[in-house]
Amino acid sequence: MAQQLNRFKVDLREIQFAIFEHLGMADVLSRPPYASWGEDECRAVLSELSRFCREVVGPTNAVGDREACRFEGGRVYTPEGFKEAWRRLYDEGWQALGVPEEHGGQGAPRILQAAFTELLSGANAAFAMYPGLAFAAAELIENCGTPEQTERYARPMFAGKIGGTMCLTEPHAGSDVGAATSSARPLPDGTYAIQGTKIFISCGDHDLTDDIVHLVLARIDGAAIGTKGLSLFIVPTTRDGKPNDVKVASIEHKMGIKASSTCVLAFGEDDACVGELVGGVPHQGMKQMFRMMNYARIAVGLQSLGVASSAYLNALEYARERKQGASVKSWKDATAPRATIVEHPDVRRMLIDMKARVEGLRALIYKLALHGDRAAVLSGKDDETVAYHLGQVELLTPLVKAWGSDQAFRIAETAIQVYGGAGYLQDHPVEQYCRDAKIFSIYEGTNHIQALDLVGRKLGQGAGRHTQEFLGDVAKFIERHKAHPVLGPSVAALREAHGSVGMVAMQLLGWFQAGEVERVPLAANRFLAMMADMAVGWLLLDQAAVALEKQATVPAEHPDHAFYEGKRHAAVYFAQNVLPDVAAAAKVILAADRSALDIPETAFATV
Amino acid sequence: MAQQLNRFKVDLREIQFAIFEHLGMADVLSRPPYASWGEDECRAVLSELSRFCREVVGPTNAVGDREACRFEGGRVYTPEGFKEAWRRLYDEGWQALGVPEEHGGQGAPRILQAAFTELLSGANAAFAMYPGLAFAAAELIENCGTPEQTERYARPMFAGKIGGTMCLTEPHAGSDVGAATSSARPLPDGTYAIQGTKIFISCGDHDLTDDIVHLVLARIDGAAIGTKGLSLFIVPTTRDGKPNDVKVASIEHKMGIKASSTCVLAFGEDDACVGELVGGVPHQGMKQMFRMMNYARIAVGLQSLGVASSAYLNALEYARERKQGASVKSWKDATAPRATIVEHPDVRRMLIDMKARVEGLRALIYKLALHGDRAAVLSGKDDETVAYHLGQVELLTPLVKAWGSDQAFRIAETAIQVYGGAGYLQDHPVEQYCRDAKIFSIYEGTNHIQALDLVGRKLGQGAGRHTQEFLGDVAKFIERHKAHPVLGPSVAALREAHGSVGMVAMQLLGWFQAGEVERVPLAANRFLAMMADMAVGWLLLDQAAVALEKQATVPAEHPDHAFYEGKRHAAVYFAQNVLPDVAAAAKVILAADRSALDIPETAFATV
Repeated sequence: MAQQLNRFKVDLREIQFAIFEHLGMADVLSRPPYASWGEDECRAVLSELSRFCREVVGPTNAVGDREACRFEGGRVYTPEGFKEAWRRLYDEGWQALGVPEEHGGQGAPRILQAAFTELLSGANAAFAMYPGLAFAAAELIENCGTPEQTERYARPMFAGKIGGTMCLTEPHAGSDVGAATSSARPLPDGTYAIQGTKIFISCGDHDLTDDIVHLVLARIDGAAIGTKGLSLFIVPTTRDGKPNDVKVASIEHKMGIKASSTCVLAFGEDDACVGELVGGVPHQGMKQMFRMMNYARIAVGLQSLGVASSAYLNALEYARERKQGASVKSWKDATAPRATIVEHPDVRRMLIDMKARVEGLRALIYKLALHGDRAAVLSGKDDETVAYHLGQVELLTPLVKAWGSDQAFRIAETAIQVYGGAGYLQDHPVEQYCRDAKIFSIYEGTNHIQALDLVGRKLGQGAGRHTQEFLGDVAKFIERHKAHPVLGPSVAALREAHGSVGMVAMQLLGWFQAGEVERVPLAANRFLAMMADMAVGWLLLDQAAVALEKQATVPAEHPDHAFYEGKRHAAVYFAQNVLPDVAAAAKVILAADRSALDIPETAFATV
Repeated sequence: MAQQLNRFKVDLREIQFAIFEHLGMADVLSRPPYASWGEDECRAVLSELSRFCREVVGPTNAVGDREACRFEGGRVYTPEGFKEAWRRLYDEGWQALGVPEEHGGQGAPRILQAAFTELLSGANAAFAMYPGLAFAAAELIENCGTPEQTERYARPMFAGKIGGTMCLTEPHAGSDVGAATSSARPLPDGTYAIQGTKIFISCGDHDLTDDIVHLVLARIDGAAIGTKGLSLFIVPTTRDGKPNDVKVASIEHKMGIKASSTCVLAFGEDDACVGELVGGVPHQGMKQMFRMMNYARIAVGLQSLGVASSAYLNALEYARERKQGASVKSWKDATAPRATIVEHPDVRRMLIDMKARVEGLRALIYKLALHGDRAAVLSGKDDETVAYHLGQVELLTPLVKAWGSDQAFRIAETAIQVYGGAGYLQDHPVEQYCRDAKIFSIYEGTNHIQALDLVGRKLGQGAGRHTQEFLGDVAKFIERHKAHPVLGPSVAALREAHGSVGMVAMQLLGWFQAGEVERVPLAANRFLAMMADMAVGWLLLDQAAVALEKQATVPAEHPDHAFYEGKRHAAVYFAQNVLPDVAAAAKVILAADRSALDIPETAFATV
C-alpha cells in the first residue's frame, strides 16, 4: 500500500546533469539578483526538494484522484492530505523559492523554480495547481499592481495565506477571449461593480485558504469591443472582513486532475461584487494577463514534464521487475529462462523513446528558464544580450507548452503499453497520468493557439531576429560537431531537420505575404512539432557531446559511466528515429494540400 | 439529459456505401450459405440495427461508465439497464444474426455481422463484450466440440441463456500464454479436475445470465511445457444443477470499459472444479483457442471502429454547433461575426483526419469480412480462390486489430481536442471513448504481438503468397488509376508507399535469414503501421474512384453529391498528408538504428 500511494519517481542525477553539466548555470550563480545562490545551495535545494515531493506530496496523488474535489453547500473541499501538504509546502519554505527576497522569499534562479514546478507537478499535478496559481497571480499583482495592492494581496498570496486564480474564460469566450461579456461599472470610491460568469476556473474555490483573490477580465462600461477593451480586476472573496459577491455555481466532473477544482464562478449575482483595477489602469487587462499566461504556459510545460518523467520512470521500474516470455533469441524455446520485459526489443524501443522525449523536454524547458536567468543577471549591463535571451524565452514558450503537453500524453500512453493490461488498472499510476495529462494540450491556450502564437507572432517578432538567432545557434552546433566520431551521422540528421524548419518558416511567411492566410493555421501545428523535434534533437545531441567528453574521464565501473552512455544512446535514437519525420513533415506542408479547406461542410458526414 | 444519455452516432449512408457501392457484395448475396440474404434484407437489417443500437443500447453507455460493475458477496452486478438491453438484444433477434441457421440463427453474411459488432460496440463498448464473448465461445464449441457439447452448451449460449468467456491469462502468463500453470487432472468419468487462477477475464462474472461457460486453457498432468501442452476445457459455472467450483476472487478497477467486468477467477480452490475437454481431444488447446482469438482480434478492430466513428460524429456535431472566434479571414476583426468552429482550418484538419481514418478502417475491416464471405460462398467450388480469400483474412487480421485500436485512441484524443475544454468533461461522450479505447491496443494480444504475428507469421505464410497477392491487388489499382484526372497525384503517393512496404518486407525477411532476428521486433510495429497506412490509403482512393463515377450521375442538390465529394476529399487528404509518412518510416527502418538494443539496462536512468 505504501508503495502504491507513493509512486512519484524522479531521476535527480539527470536533473543535475541538465542544469550543471549541460546548460551550465555558473555564469548566473552568485551574481545579482542571485547573489546568495551558489552551486552548493542549488544542489542542496534540488536534493531536499526531491525528497519533499516524493515523501510529502507524492502520496496525495492517487488519493486525490479517487476522492476528487467535493462541492457541498456552495463550497469546494479538497481531498484528504491536501491541507497538510499545503501547510508544509509553505512552512518549510518550498513555495518561497521563487518569491522575490523583498517579499520574504528566496529569489531563486528561474531554472531552480522550474525544477520545483516540475517536481511538485510530477508528484501531484492537480495539487500543484493551487500554489502555482496563487503564486502566478501574486506575481502579476506585484508587477502590475499598485504598491498598496502588492502589500495587501501579493504578499499574503506569496505566503500561502490567500489563494489565487485567473478568470478569463466565459461560456462563449474560450480561445476567443475578446468575446468576454463580463462587465465592470465604476463606483464612486474608485472600485468597480463586477458582473459576469466565468467558467473553467482552475482552483476557483478550495479549503486550503480562507480567502482567494480572483483576477478577473471584464469590460468597463463603454470600453471597446474585443481584447482591447478588457481590464483586469482584483476580486477578493473577502473585502474588509465581509464576503464579496462571488458564488461557486458548480464544479466540473473531469477525465483527470480530479483533485483540482474546476469551477463555474458567478460574479455579482446580487450586484454586490467589488473589484479593484490592477494598477489602477483601465483597458490594460490583456497585456497584464499575458504576463500570467506566459508563466502559466511554461508551467504547463513543466507539469507535462513532471508527469511524463514519472510515467517513464515507473514504466522502467516495472519493465525491470516484470518477467514475461523468453529472450527474442530463444523466442520459441519454451524451456528458455523467462526474461524481464526490459530485455525485449519492443519494450526497449518504448523505453528509449520515452527517455529521449522526457530528457529532451527537460533540456528545452530548463534552457528557456536559464535564458530568463541570464537576462536577469545581465539586465542593465548588456542590452543586446538581454534582448537575445528574452527573445529566446518568447520563441520557446509555445514549443514548451504545446510540444511538451503532447509528449506528456503520448509518454503516459506508452507507459501504459509497457505495463500491458496492468497499466490499464488503478493499481498502477500510469492510467492516472494519462488522464491527467490530456488537459495539458487544452488549457492555458489550446495547442493550436500555441501554434498560431508561434507562426503568427513569434517567428516574425523583432523582424524575425529571435528565429534567426535560434536557427543560428543550432547551425553553430552542427558546424562544430559535424565530424564528431560518434555523433556525426546523427548531426547530419539534425542538419536535414534544420534545413527543413528554415524552409517551411519561409513558406509560412510567403503565405502570409501572398494573402493565403488560411493555409497558415492548417500547417501551424505540424510546423510547431517540426521545430520542437528539431530543437529537442539538437539539445539531446548537445547533451550527448558533453556526456561523451565527461565519460572519457570516468572509470567504467562508476555509475556515471552508464549514465553518460544513456545520454549518447537517447540522442542517437532520437536523431535516427524521430528527426527523419521533420523532413517528411516539411514535404507534406510544402505540398500544400487543401483538402481540409475545400471539403464542403455537408460532405463530412450525412448525419 | 436525453441527449446526454443517447450519444451514439452512426452514419448509415457511409456503411451502406462501403458494403454495397465500394466492396460490392452482390456476388455473395442469395447464394449458399447466404441463400436467404438479398440486398433488400441486408439494407433493412442495417437500418433497424442502427435504430436499435441508438435507441436501446446507446443510452446505457454513460450510465454504465459512471456506475461500473459492482462486486458484492462474490458476485458481479452489471450497471442499470444492462439486463434490459441484453434481453432485447436476444428477444428481438439481433444477436442471432451471426448464429448458423441450424442452431436457430439467421446465418447472415460476415460483413453484416461485422456491421452489427461495430454498431453494438459503438453504442456501448463495455456492454457489447458480454454477448460478443458468449457468441465467440459458442462458435468455438460448435466448431471444435462434440455434438453433445454443441447441443448442451453452444445452443443456449447462442440464445443468450448462458454467458461465455475465454480464460488464457494467468498472473505470470500474459503475452506468454505458454507459461500457464493451470492444471487438469483426469477423473474416472472422463472429465477433468481443473485448478488454477486466471486473471483479466473479461465478463468473467455478471448477472445477465444464470450460468457462464468458461473456456479454460490448462495443462493435463504430464503434458508438454509451453503452448503445445495446453488443452482447452469447458468449465460451466453450474453442472447438473449444482454449482461448479469457480470463484470470482475480485474485479479490477480500470481506466475505462468500467461496465465490463474484468475478473480474477479461481478454479478448483476446493478441488471440486470439473471441466470437459473441448471435442474430447487433448493438447489441442491453443489451436482451438486460436479460432476464438482470431475472431476476438477482428472484434477488437470493430470495437475500435464503432467507438472511433461515434467519437468523430460527435465531434463533428459539436463543431457545427459551437461558435468561437471569427473566420480566419477576419481573425483580428473583433466586429466580425462569430463563426462555428467547423469553419476554422485546424478544426477542419482534425475532422477530415478523423473522417479519413474512420472510413478507411471501416473499409479495411469490411473488406476482411467480405473475404470471409467470398470464401464461404466459393467453398468446395473454387479452391484456389477460396485460398486467396482466406489468405487475405489471415494477413489483414493483425492490421485490423493493431492499426484499428491505435486509431481509436488517436481519434478519441482528437475528438477531445475538437471540443476543447468541454471534451475533458463527463458532460460529453468523448473522454469516455478515449478511456474505453486505451485497452484495445492491449487485450486480445498487445499490438506488438499483432506486429510479430504479421512479420513473423503472416508475411511469409503460404511461401509469401498472401503478401504477394495483397501487394498485387494494390499494384493493379495503381496501374488502373495512375492517370486518373482527379486522383492521379494521390495514386502516385500510394505508389511510393506501396514500394516502401515491399522494400521493408524484403529487409525483414533478410534479417530473419541473416540471423539478425532481434532487429525484427524492433521494426515490427512501425512496419505494421506502414502496411496499414498503405492499405487504408488504397481503399480510400478506391472508394473515391467509385464515388467520383457515381457523383457524375447525381444532381448537385442531391445529398449523395456532397457525400461523394466527401469521399474524394478524405482520400486525397489521406494520400497527401499520411501516405508520405510511409516512405519516411521505411527510411528509418532501413537505417536500422540499434540504439534501443545497445543501450545498457543501467543506462536508462539512475533510479
